[in-house]
Amino acid sequence: MRTELITIRTGDQPVVVDITAEAARFVAGEGDGLLNVFVPHATAGIAILETGAGSDDDLLTALEDVLPADDRWQHRHGSYGHGRDHVMPAFIPPHATLPVLHGRITLGTWQSICLVDPNGDNPERQVRFSFLPG
Amino acid sequence: MRTELITIRTGDQPVVVDITAEAARFVAGEGDGLLNVFVPHATAGIAILETGAGSDDDLLTALEDVLPADDRWQHRHGSYGHGRDHVMPAFIPPHATLPVLHGRITLGTWQSICLVDPNGDNPERQVRFSFLPG
Amino acid sequence: MRTELITIRTGDQPVVVDITAEAARFVAGEGDGLLNVFVPHATAGIAILETGAGSDDDLLTALEDVLPADDRWQHRHGSYGHGRDHVMPAFIPPHATLPVLHGRITLGTWQSICLVDPNGDNPERQVRFSFLPG
Repeated sequence: MRTELITIRTGDQPVVVDITAEAARFVAGEGDGLLNVFVPHATAGIAILETGAGSDDDLLTALEDVLPADDRWQHRHGSYGHGRDHVMPAFIPPHATLPVLHGRITLGTWQSICLVDPNGDNPERQVRFSFLPG
Repeated sequence: MRTELITIRTGDQPVVVDITAEAARFVAGEGDGLLNVFVPHATAGIAILETGAGSDDDLLTALEDVLPADDRWQHRHGSYGHGRDHVMPAFIPPHATLPVLHGRITLGTWQSICLVDPNGDNPERQVRFSFLPG
Repeated sequence: MRTELITIRTGDQPVVVDITAEAARFVAGEGDGLLNVFVPHATAGIAILETGAGSDDDLLTALEDVLPADDRWQHRHGSYGHGRDHVMPAFIPPHATLPVLHGRITLGTWQSICLVDPNGDNPERQVRFSFLPG
């Protein structure tokens, strides 16, 4: 297994960052196998989405609706409503495992690998790519 | 790694399709390893559910509640409210990785592998099975 | 692939159980590879969360909000509202695949592997760990 940890700038606002190019670069030159994408953070997730047509913002809106940033959460520290960021990874998991053929991730035309970070308190995030050949 | 792309008819209504038989057929005759199920579409997902007792329809109802098909979405094309179909894969991911022992997926008695397609605009979907022996 | 099935006591109330120690024990002594965590039950899931600061209870509250235990569900048997437990695995999948390096799961500081069981009717659950070296 080959593995690599990269750093992604996510800034101080909730954000969906397209990391497909980074993932594609990681597996380029490999053969067939599985790519595992993992975020070692308790308030971030990985989603496979179409980007560039509004769905990234739509996801943030949906998250605000499903998990409102208000005072209902027991977990309290950081910004107001931050407790909901800690629940998010149950719904948008911090891991994804995807097939790779001839060094290319077999994503559909409109699919991108996205880092979802609702948490404005952490401006930088790490993402681990691991490739298991098979 | 052995991989195969199959086509599933999903029709013109939101639907949950049980694809356990297709997956079981794919790994039959293999030994131990991991089965990856992946949908190369931006508006579909994979869920592990009990089918045949109403939960497939219950899931579609829950999705209508969590992600309403209305005009709140920025991503607009196709049918009214279709933008929500593009958010769904963040909550119901297009991938699942499951253990296989002696050529059998180690599902529990009541578990089925399901293709979740809320999108009536695409009557056919592809699903990729990949088996990584270990 | 090495695999093992363990039994976890979940009691008669909705609960989030931290199983990180069990998972860590399972991969200890291994090299690099992928750990697959799988629950062979139709009403349970796996979430990667921070535990011990309230997020486990926050998740149960969020689930009660997103999937209310009332009479809206077609799937009816067991306790009142139990149908929603059968929809949960679509949102909180029964599987997670995580990177392992030198026999250690590469979790972030605040991440734990959790078994999510909203179902009070099953006091015991099984969890399968599988390690695929790479």
